[in-house]
Amino acid sequence: MNSYVVIMAGGSGERFWPLSRMQKPKQLLHLTSPNASMIEEAILRIEPLIPLERILIITSTVLRQPIIDALPHLPPENVIAEPAKRNTAPCLALACSVIEHREQGDALMVVLTADHFIGNAAMFRKDIETALQFAQETDALVVMGIPPTRPETGYGYIHVAGRLSEDEVSTVDAFKEKPNFETAREYVLSGRYLWNSGMFFWRTHVLRDVMIDVLPEVGLRIADMTRCIERNDRSALEGAFATMPDISIDYGVMERAKNVFVIPASFPWDDVGSWDALERMQPRDTDHNVVQGATVLLESRGSVVVNAHSGGHVVTVVGIDDLVVVVTDDATMVCKKDHAQDVKKIVAALREKGRDDIL
Amino acid sequence: MNSYVVIMAGGSGERFWPLSRMQKPKQLLHLTSPNASMIEEAILRIEPLIPLERILIITSTVLRQPIIDALPHLPPENVIAEPAKRNTAPCLALACSVIEHREQGDALMVVLTADHFIGNAAMFRKDIETALQFAQETDALVVMGIPPTRPETGYGYIHVAGRLSEDEVSTVDAFKEKPNFETAREYVLSGRYLWNSGMFFWRTHVLRDVMIDVLPEVGLRIADMTRCIERNDRSALEGAFATMPDISIDYGVMERAKNVFVIPASFPWDDVGSWDALERMQPRDTDHNVVQGATVLLESRGSVVVNAHSGGHVVTVVGIDDLVVVVTDDATMVCKKDHAQDVKKIVAALREKGRDDIL
Repeated sequence: MNSYVVIMAGGSGERFWPLSRMQKPKQLLHLTSPNASMIEEAILRIEPLIPLERILIITSTVLRQPIIDALPHLPPENVIAEPAKRNTAPCLALACSVIEHREQGDALMVVLTADHFIGNAAMFRKDIETALQFAQETDALVVMGIPPTRPETGYGYIHVAGRLSEDEVSTVDAFKEKPNFETAREYVLSGRYLWNSGMFFWRTHVLRDVMIDVLPEVGLRIADMTRCIERNDRSALEGAFATMPDISIDYGVMERAKNVFVIPASFPWDDVGSWDALERMQPRDTDHNVVQGATVLLESRGSVVVNAHSGGHVVTVVGIDDLVVVVTDDATMVCKKDHAQDVKKIVAALREKGRDDIL
Repeated sequence: MNSYVVIMAGGSGERFWPLSRMQKPKQLLHLTSPNASMIEEAILRIEPLIPLERILIITSTVLRQPIIDALPHLPPENVIAEPAKRNTAPCLALACSVIEHREQGDALMVVLTADHFIGNAAMFRKDIETALQFAQETDALVVMGIPPTRPETGYGYIHVAGRLSEDEVSTVDAFKEKPNFETAREYVLSGRYLWNSGMFFWRTHVLRDVMIDVLPEVGLRIADMTRCIERNDRSALEGAFATMPDISIDYGVMERAKNVFVIPASFPWDDVGSWDALERMQPRDTDHNVVQGATVLLESRGSVVVNAHSGGHVVTVVGIDDLVVVVTDDATMVCKKDHAQDVKKIVAALREKGRDDIL
């Protein structure tokens, strides 16, 4: 049975402003490697297992062309624009239709993210093979779970039924929404919770059948959309897509389905959620600063300073700790490292001011 | 008797980097007014009392042309480059020679600074008239003293003999070097100390005679330099200037002379010593921020944010208080407001790295 990769790459990445822009969100930035964008890295990582012809990217209309330009080796017809802004459940239903049309039948589907850090590509592929084999042999929905390393309140958690052992596929007891700090701490200490990575494995027939069962307003559209694709009827496809509700795969399907399994990841992982994530992935200097580009830091510790300005621009910081400073040709952003998510507030304020030219 | 103004404008202004540069120090910046550089303001302020033909500017070789360019109405021969880097005593000895040559005799001399803030030009001129009248009628060295408003440790203080009353010229008991905080506090509370403004008033003959008495290695050069100017012998002038020691007018003359008087200023004054000074002179927004140029500050209070980048560049700060952020086309500087003087350390570090292109 053929395997397909579906990379969801619709994110706008406002939390990496001013480096990220509407036309150049996080997945197109060189955040985790100096030589490749995050989406390039995602493809290079999975390509040894699954050929480019069977790697699909689902993104927004505005990002389709920038992504095609960034990935010249990928067949451009594999970069698919969602007809409307929905959420991950409709997005994966569309991917399911595309694959079922291409295969004229069942296929294995690997859902990956475009903008996460993965620390060991070989271990990553080994885990994927394990998950795919399990998905092929069963009627399972499989999610990749990340062993938590801190009481993170920004992620969803997966409660595993029974104690985990490494490399073992376990049944899932429940999905938990983002917890408060105290609950997150209990989850981590219990050893029975994994972070929800957003990576999934299943057969397309299984996804379709489960969706028809637990989320019919999406599941029933899969066959409709497959027919639209067969007839090459773009307008009918858009119409079918638009009828689906804005609902996530986690909330709409995984939390409701019965045949859900989890495989614990054996590789380092980070969701690269905001600027402060860089210090978990990049080498720090002796003062525990992470710097990119021409910078001078004096008496400053624990900061993230990114100079992406062109020309000979220098970014300097003296006598403050724990800052994030990012400078591009047209914008400068300064915030506290532990409030790096507040960058979104700046983006909102600039949108309010009509400064879309720098967003 | 004619009055001359001598404006000392040799300062390099490193504490306003990255806006100030070696070729564009503080006195050439629009720091206190959006419409004029500080040196332009200094001249506009005094011009109603003393005509441009008798306003001299003493500066460094490297700054002479930039200052001429910035002051098109001033006769260019009135902008005089010091032949070598010395200090204020040799600088004022040279000014004394130039004036004695032009007047062929005694004249009144007003020494002003090029880069201080003066809050009320009319009161300023009134005080100057008082000081000049006293200097004309006596053999006095007169200094303008500023009534202190805070226990500043960065200024020199003047101990007044006897209790001060407004607008009254008093004798000086002693000049005090920069005190520590506790001493500064005692000075301010005593009501018997004034800040040393660096503004002086005397007749050239008086200055020359006092200098010959208390600082002969400088005072004896005045007549020599006047002869060099008369012969138009630039090289002999440079030779005479170079023999003088590096010594300040305060330490070399004012602290040693006996006939020293002080007049308390009746106008608001600030030395504009570093970026944090802007908040003492410019309007603050409702969050007590002082901003210049396109800026967005969210949940930030008490900061100074200067966007001097060209084009549509925006400077944004979120969730931090009491910062200084200055952005130009080729440099960004972030520091804590109460350590704004540390900017000098950045300048030193950049010099060390050979980055004179941005200094």
